[in-house]
Amino acid sequence: MIYFEEIEMGHSVSLGAHHFTAEAIKVFARAYDPQSFHIDEEAAKDSHFGALCASGWHTASVWMRLMVDHMKTDIQATIADGRRPAMLGPSPGFRDLKWLKPVYAGDTITYSSTVIGKRESASKPRWGLVEHHNVGVNQKGERVFEFIGTVFWERRPA
Amino acid sequence: MIYFEEIEMGHSVSLGAHHFTAEAIKVFARAYDPQSFHIDEEAAKDSHFGALCASGWHTASVWMRLMVDHMKTDIQATIADGRRPAMLGPSPGFRDLKWLKPVYAGDTITYSSTVIGKRESASKPRWGLVEHHNVGVNQKGERVFEFIGTVFWERRPA
Repeated sequence: MIYFEEIEMGHSVSLGAHHFTAEAIKVFARAYDPQSFHIDEEAAKDSHFGALCASGWHTASVWMRLMVDHMKTDIQATIADGRRPAMLGPSPGFRDLKWLKPVYAGDTITYSSTVIGKRESASKPRWGLVEHHNVGVNQKGERVFEFIGTVFWERRPA
Repeated sequence: MIYFEEIEMGHSVSLGAHHFTAEAIKVFARAYDPQSFHIDEEAAKDSHFGALCASGWHTASVWMRLMVDHMKTDIQATIADGRRPAMLGPSPGFRDLKWLKPVYAGDTITYSSTVIGKRESASKPRWGLVEHHNVGVNQKGERVFEFIGTVFWERRPA
């Protein structure tokens, strides 16, 4: 089993890439962020963005989806390897989320996650807290999205 | 027109309430956060949450929807009042997002937004930056969600 103690500072994983279609941008935005530059190509041309682009919450939610897919693959590999799967607890939140550049219809964003901090939980003795720097980069190599997320990891039993 | 200079520190608005149904929780989570406790009532009972609950990104995305609805209402009221609508620019990001308690199926979350900071933009002379403390409270009065968001506001022309 991979416990908190085994997580290495600086360890980085690629979470894969996601292609943002105009249709998916509009479906998300109609439900959660119906501003004109997220739901209407013509109106978006006249906005400060200049073209249809994804809600920032869409960009963030896609990160979550790729992270969940990665975790599932990771757990399956751990089981196949004869170990018990690593246990990941709930997230207490995150900090410093930045939408650095628009994500336009047709863009492909590649996400990654790097361990940048570890500490034992003061309130939950069975858990440690791991900080990840999560980043999204578009097809031109420009960073469009980042945040520092915190998750609980189970500690090695004494 | 309501410019940056007219925004008052401590000004608070209610963004209204949203009822989280099991079906909506599962629809969001199947697309963006397919962990078992967000998509399967039975599996959720055995999880650390104890029952089906919303993806944290769903809770955040609903905040965005209510904020957009509020902005549209506000702009219409401003126009009806004979003034030009306030211009709200894009958000550069936010900080200190916290998922304090789970949002369970059947919960109703009431969101609010309070101005806690203002400063002139160093890089964009036409804009000021306004910080809001955004909060979600459930039907028991428990705070479940909060973050500090930053948005650009147009400054009064010299």
